Amino acid sequence: MARQVDVADLVDRARRREPRAVARLISLVEDASPQLREAAAALAPHGGRAQVIGLTGSPGVGKSTTTSALVAAYRALGKRVGVLAIDPSSPFSGGALLGDRIRMQEHATDPDVFIRSMATRGHLGGMAWATPQALRVLDAAGFDVVLIETVGVGQSEVEVVALADTTIVLLAPGMGDGIQAAKAGILEIADVFVVNKADRDGADTTVRELKYMISLGRREIRGASWRQPIVKTVAARLEGIADVVEAIDTHRTWMAEHGELEERRAVRARTEIEAIAVESLRAKLADVHGDALEGLAKRVMAGEVDPYTAADSLIESIQAST
Amino acid sequence: MARQVDVADLVDRARRREPRAVARLISLVEDASPQLREAAAALAPHGGRAQVIGLTGSPGVGKSTTTSALVAAYRALGKRVGVLAIDPSSPFSGGALLGDRIRMQEHATDPDVFIRSMATRGHLGGMAWATPQALRVLDAAGFDVVLIETVGVGQSEVEVVALADTTIVLLAPGMGDGIQAAKAGILEIADVFVVNKADRDGADTTVRELKYMISLGRREIRGASWRQPIVKTVAARLEGIADVVEAIDTHRTWMAEHGELEERRAVRARTEIEAIAVESLRAKLADVHGDALEGLAKRVMAGEVDPYTAADSLIESIQAST
Repeated sequence: MARQVDVADLVDRARRREPRAVARLISLVEDASPQLREAAAALAPHGGRAQVIGLTGSPGVGKSTTTSALVAAYRALGKRVGVLAIDPSSPFSGGALLGDRIRMQEHATDPDVFIRSMATRGHLGGMAWATPQALRVLDAAGFDVVLIETVGVGQSEVEVVALADTTIVLLAPGMGDGIQAAKAGILEIADVFVVNKADRDGADTTVRELKYMISLGRREIRGASWRQPIVKTVAARLEGIADVVEAIDTHRTWMAEHGELEERRAVRARTEIEAIAVESLRAKLADVHGDALEGLAKRVMAGEVDPYTAADSLIESIQAST
Repeated sequence: MARQVDVADLVDRARRREPRAVARLISLVEDASPQLREAAAALAPHGGRAQVIGLTGSPGVGKSTTTSALVAAYRALGKRVGVLAIDPSSPFSGGALLGDRIRMQEHATDPDVFIRSMATRGHLGGMAWATPQALRVLDAAGFDVVLIETVGVGQSEVEVVALADTTIVLLAPGMGDGIQAAKAGILEIADVFVVNKADRDGADTTVRELKYMISLGRREIRGASWRQPIVKTVAARLEGIADVVEAIDTHRTWMAEHGELEERRAVRARTEIEAIAVESLRAKLADVHGDALEGLAKRVMAGEVDPYTAADSLIESIQAST
């Protein structure tokens, strides 16, 4: 498990665009390898170039199909494209069930496309911790565009795609998706809305609902308001994909004009640093103080002590031990 | 915002089953009020009685309808029932869009039912932090059964319902829900599977897929294996709900026989303590060291320092300041 790898060599090879080296570095992130620290140091000078696009939506709206269509569109523009598809950790997801990844296989033999379905270990904040680091690998490896796709509509997933330069929220007609999206808190992170499967009944209703919801919650950033566009697509037939790319470009230009790109990247860096710091503190709590925690949990269960007092004891014990 | 409340009085009134006092205490949790510490101390001796049932599944499978049907079933057994419906934080979800909560309104005038749609502030681990504390309020207020319903299929949502004594995973025919569920990592947290909308085409296929997936991933706990039952329901017509209640009871008996109930509650207490401790450390990072973090983020963006080294500096600064 804890196989030592030559990290400096891996980073060199990743920068020379060897897919296997890129894959190995991302595995270090997934495994939360102790060697990540060394990798991060070697990667640090080589970042900041990739355009990062987040894509999310409820199950069944066509995220993988849309991602695949966007990969093709960016390839046609001569860009190298990396894809991080984030799956919550599942012992079941080891390959066999990743059926919709198959649609991506048209890109499998293209050396300028790198697709990775990434699982994170089941700790809280796992994806917020791992995604920026995986992104850093692809960035240093010279991918011009990195697409981050999250399955699900959960809190962590929303937070992760919100770290992108531009976040696309995908909906599809029917199933009250507009409402579902609103419940999941993804409306406010969208820079671009895509209503996929727009050839189906109800597409216009979805667009109308969405317009109404946008009108309720318009974001104001530094006095300037970005008007979230709604793009209709049929991703399976590549319809509307050029419009999505254009909407992303328009948003990028708008961000540059309003200092927003710099601001978002600062937020991403802060989130990354904070997630690493919190995880490192959490590891201390768990590893060094597992027994203490066990004892405190028993006392909380018995009603002898409240969880805040128990948490204080835990914190005191790590501070005493460093 | 930071209105002082008489916490001891609130706790007394909650224990005398005043719904408004219960609601106020849960608001303290949502707001991450500084008074929570005092509330936790007052609540601590009065917990451990409620039976906690988690319910999750993809959007559209009928979670609210099923929850409502379960509330009716437990009321018929004379139990007092609390419901925590967990929504990821959304400025849009302030009431107007909670349309499916309306289905719960049949219970709105029942003093022995308390339903709360709970939003958490948008910090990582927000729900894992807040849910056990809200649960503690309902437990102390004498609810016999607490249902935790999560919308979405995300990592945090999965982690939250997994804290229940018994976790129900809901599916519905069509849309490849079985596969979607597997991707979201919810199969392995299910104690009971419910295939809702079982009158629809494809219900038998969903059951078959599920049986196959269960056969791949059977959990072994302490040498004894719990065989996850699959119950078919049409919750909107209350069909199969008695079978769900029976499956929950059977699971509860099994847990008691195998020491698993005690074990799960210990995990819940550890998670709660750890989440409070980590959040408290995170607050120190953010509040006391906001400027330091800002500066470190700039250096990380410039490639001058890697995020691990930046995280180390941050941790050193909180340890130096305490």
